[in-house]
Amino acid sequence: MEATWQLIAERGSHSVRIADIARACGTSTGTVRYHFPGKNDVLAEALKHCVSQAFARQSAELRAIDDAHGRMLKLIDLQLPRPGQVRDEWSIRLQHWAEAALRPELRAAHNEYYDRWQDTVRRIARRGQRQGVFRADAERPGLTWGFYGDDHFPLGYGRRRDPTAAGPLGVGCDIKRQLL
Amino acid sequence: MEATWQLIAERGSHSVRIADIARACGTSTGTVRYHFPGKNDVLAEALKHCVSQAFARQSAELRAIDDAHGRMLKLIDLQLPRPGQVRDEWSIRLQHWAEAALRPELRAAHNEYYDRWQDTVRRIARRGQRQGVFRADAERPGLTWGFYGDDHFPLGYGRRRDPTAAGPLGVGCDIKRQLL
Repeated sequence: MEATWQLIAERGSHSVRIADIARACGTSTGTVRYHFPGKNDVLAEALKHCVSQAFARQSAELRAIDDAHGRMLKLIDLQLPRPGQVRDEWSIRLQHWAEAALRPELRAAHNEYYDRWQDTVRRIARRGQRQGVFRADAERPGLTWGFYGDDHFPLGYGRRRDPTAAGPLGVGCDIKRQLL
Repeated sequence: MEATWQLIAERGSHSVRIADIARACGTSTGTVRYHFPGKNDVLAEALKHCVSQAFARQSAELRAIDDAHGRMLKLIDLQLPRPGQVRDEWSIRLQHWAEAALRPELRAAHNEYYDRWQDTVRRIARRGQRQGVFRADAERPGLTWGFYGDDHFPLGYGRRRDPTAAGPLGVGCDIKRQLL
């Protein structure tokens, strides 16, 4: 999968053929077709792979930082699209967003991974409240929306918007302001 | 172009073949190939078409509203991805973003259209300051970044970030907060 997802990140899932994947993996086209029977399977697996890599990387690095503020800054830092691994992960995500707008069957995975991301942000926010370094309303539902910008879901991926989630947001904004 | 860009919005530029475009336009594949010689030309033209439609729509509607606050709300309202025309435009944009990350030759157009969008937001911000309905710092460089979320450019499309553009942003945040 390592060779496959990098190929897709660099060239785009539509430009990568079964034969390219087989060559990159040192296997036969028959084997590739067996593992990826459908048109969207390669991109779906690539996303799964890069999300789990990002999650493992985050978990390891964040656990080492006790302070919630430092942990939040680290999380943002880990997501900055520097050339290499993280930029390639962003390429896969962008492709997946565009495809999920066209193909509803990709949306469940998108939402699942995004929930996981929201959960990560929310846990750091709660930690910051316990430590007294974040405002008391840092955990409200809108937090991660503002963190990423509400327009990440311009096509309405079937999420119900919480009317109490009042847009962007204390912690997200403040931290972005410091960084950007 | 009308028939072509809708086809791309609904099915994705990679899934639309020359023959599909010819059929939708009631012309020959030879004519389509003449107009779109390169692989990216169809998507590039689709973006151009939908951006100019959106711009014409915005200009007409916004001009009718004198009050800058009302004008800004209208601008946001016009961009909400309701099913139909605007959702289809978002589909084209998402596809173009993903492709521009892969193919540098698409980035100039992306930056040009985004500059136009920034200009629209900035002009309304200035109007609001003249009218005294927006804060004095509403026009600072970061305004439109925050309006859209800074992560719209996760792959570094060759824009130089202004270090004084201090993230998200008075007007954008406040208006989003009211709306969302």
